[in-house]
Amino acid sequence: MPATLLPDIDTLNRLACDGRLSRTALLQQAQARAREPAAQAVLLQTSFDTAVSAAQAADAAALAGKPLHPLAGLPVSIKDLFDIGGEITRAASTARADAAPASEDAPVVARLRAVGAALVGRTNMTEFPFSGVGINPHYGTPVNPHDGAVARICGGSSSGAAASVALGLSVAALGSDTGGSIRIPAALCGLTGFKPTARRVPLTGAFPLSFSLDTACAMARTVADCVLVDGVIADQALVPVRKAAGALRLAVPRQLLLDDLDETVSRAFDRTLGRLSAAGVQIEHVDLPELLELSTLNAQGGLTAAEAYAIHRGTLASRRALYDPRVAARIDRGAAIGAADYVDLVRARAAWSARVMARLEGYDALACPTVPVVAPPIAPLVADDALFTRTNALLLRNPSTINFLDGCAISLPCHQPDELPVGLMLAHGPMRDAPLLGTALALEAVLAPGPQA
Amino acid sequence: MPATLLPDIDTLNRLACDGRLSRTALLQQAQARAREPAAQAVLLQTSFDTAVSAAQAADAAALAGKPLHPLAGLPVSIKDLFDIGGEITRAASTARADAAPASEDAPVVARLRAVGAALVGRTNMTEFPFSGVGINPHYGTPVNPHDGAVARICGGSSSGAAASVALGLSVAALGSDTGGSIRIPAALCGLTGFKPTARRVPLTGAFPLSFSLDTACAMARTVADCVLVDGVIADQALVPVRKAAGALRLAVPRQLLLDDLDETVSRAFDRTLGRLSAAGVQIEHVDLPELLELSTLNAQGGLTAAEAYAIHRGTLASRRALYDPRVAARIDRGAAIGAADYVDLVRARAAWSARVMARLEGYDALACPTVPVVAPPIAPLVADDALFTRTNALLLRNPSTINFLDGCAISLPCHQPDELPVGLMLAHGPMRDAPLLGTALALEAVLAPGPQA
Repeated sequence: MPATLLPDIDTLNRLACDGRLSRTALLQQAQARAREPAAQAVLLQTSFDTAVSAAQAADAAALAGKPLHPLAGLPVSIKDLFDIGGEITRAASTARADAAPASEDAPVVARLRAVGAALVGRTNMTEFPFSGVGINPHYGTPVNPHDGAVARICGGSSSGAAASVALGLSVAALGSDTGGSIRIPAALCGLTGFKPTARRVPLTGAFPLSFSLDTACAMARTVADCVLVDGVIADQALVPVRKAAGALRLAVPRQLLLDDLDETVSRAFDRTLGRLSAAGVQIEHVDLPELLELSTLNAQGGLTAAEAYAIHRGTLASRRALYDPRVAARIDRGAAIGAADYVDLVRARAAWSARVMARLEGYDALACPTVPVVAPPIAPLVADDALFTRTNALLLRNPSTINFLDGCAISLPCHQPDELPVGLMLAHGPMRDAPLLGTALALEAVLAPGPQA
Repeated sequence: MPATLLPDIDTLNRLACDGRLSRTALLQQAQARAREPAAQAVLLQTSFDTAVSAAQAADAAALAGKPLHPLAGLPVSIKDLFDIGGEITRAASTARADAAPASEDAPVVARLRAVGAALVGRTNMTEFPFSGVGINPHYGTPVNPHDGAVARICGGSSSGAAASVALGLSVAALGSDTGGSIRIPAALCGLTGFKPTARRVPLTGAFPLSFSLDTACAMARTVADCVLVDGVIADQALVPVRKAAGALRLAVPRQLLLDDLDETVSRAFDRTLGRLSAAGVQIEHVDLPELLELSTLNAQGGLTAAEAYAIHRGTLASRRALYDPRVAARIDRGAAIGAADYVDLVRARAAWSARVMARLEGYDALACPTVPVVAPPIAPLVADDALFTRTNALLLRNPSTINFLDGCAISLPCHQPDELPVGLMLAHGPMRDAPLLGTALALEAVLAPGPQA
């Protein structure tokens, strides 16, 4: 992990409690780091003044013996697609540079602010967050901090969100996940990213990509940190249902999700399964032939293309030149989808999900690599449209299955210090969030016995 | 009301309890009536043998002092679009005459059967129930029993359902309502028809027209009878929330719903408002300009055309000649609707509903005529496509607003004995079923002080 990753939230609170950490100093440090070259293109807009004030308020309250939320005074970043009162929600597009400022905070932002989080700024992302790569031709592309030699992507769409945590500008990053946009960058940047069941977190004030698939969610350092932030943005603190490692059953699908792994991911995944197995976790390779239906079901571009086209067709008609051509091309696919195709897909999705859930019954989670490859270099992806398209599809392949399922999923780091980051995805169906998080806590303890270990 | 309408369910149970009614005899009488010319084209398929057995079982159980559900042994008809185990669900179409028989009862049918209802047979309807008129070129058109001189429509799509109750073949008729298909025939045949909030009653095993708007529901003689049947098919007995008439506030919209009333409906509606007002009900004429947006919102055929096209496009391609051309033409409109149009409409519906609900807040119900005209004669509608199209739109206009709202509504008879039937529609928003039914009970008591009065 990069040296700049901040300790987890519980550790920070203990340090602050012991008088060994000033939240204000932490914020000032984050502000300084945000100016470093490594943080280029990470924050599209900063608000360190109010963030430092929030940290000062938290420090003062702590000194006065007042109860504090664990997030109070700690730095949190906000993906550029969420409304913040008085700011323009550009969704990292130049097409929205002259949009009217938001009249109020999105509920998820308001909830973070209400517990005292220090909101440091708006993070970069794939425009209108329509790709899993994280390249942005308008505002630059955040560089993955895990390779000092080659400029690699952070993954997307929440590229700046991941960089903001990985670089120590924030302890948690609010983002969104329509086909993997939290989990892909979490995996590629060595973080933990949790996509809850979509309906649990309000999408009001979040610039939409797909009404059916969008999820407001966050990434952070640990599972516990993700649980904490999820409790705030969902306004419902889940109690993770924990089991002993020896009582856990994981289903590793034989189809699709283990295809085309690169060497690092393949080695890390095998090693991870071995370690879990040694800890008593029951690993079963199962048939999930439904996964092979997805490419046909979504051949026209899926729910996302149809819904994104509904959202953008007016703006595309008048200001196409302001869009990333790759994003515009993906949106354009929705134009050819008929209402009946869409209705069929909505129905097919419900039937598909029911069949998948029947197969997952009795398992604590589906397990697979979050993405099949480590972070690829930026330059070839910028230069080559075909490579970009292939890579984008590869990055989205595994995580997007869980959005289609309407389920919940988490990506945990499972690489060694000498490897580029690799994510282990654990997933389950709709509203299984609490048991899934319990499973993730148990497995995280096996894989990485705490930040102090 | 026609002499053949059976007493309400509570009266029948009291008569049976006093030994003055044999359920078996009632079923045999219904069987005899089903053979009379007036009942032509009402039942597409009968099951009087098992129905008489159910009545005999109820009589025997009553004699043995066993507790009985109020519907036990009483005749109930089933609209042709519901699955009954072992029977073909034709949805009154010749295109499905060779479909595979249903493997089991639809849940709503199974629930009626489970309480002991005597299921007398499958009722005629508009094919694939795609019109509010109730004309069926394949199986004939049920004739409204309220005019001995002119053959008038029963209304649709649940035409045979209404006739089955009006002719005394059943005490209640299971039907469906996508744009008024329970309420229109209830209004035109002098019955009470209740369309609950759609999500309350399962649609499994019901041949679909519109996944977004379909509602499984029933018509009967009285509000109490509707409450009883709703409790069975929803598997959730609602307790109507009653208020004194003097505490009720009704909203009568100024826009759309009172347009183009014929003389009988206009007179009956004015008289009804006068009587309610005299009983202390507060009647307020309110602005509901949202109603004027509906024709634009649904200009392409709406959710129903899009969803019906998704359902039928395969069959239409291979057996178009077997469809009623008027039904096929309405389905065909869905072909031109794009996915983005559909997505826009789904979103616009949600926003529209929220605005309408804000206006209805504080009112116990919206009130208007269920349909603006009395039952028109059949022959001109069969002969004239343009007249059919105009009439269909007129019949659907008022009730379909409540399906679009995702609300609940009930049609109560409000005509005099010397008039053709006229319905008063009371409606409210999603999940307001219990208070709406309470309001309906209170207003029914003002308008028609019980079947014995």
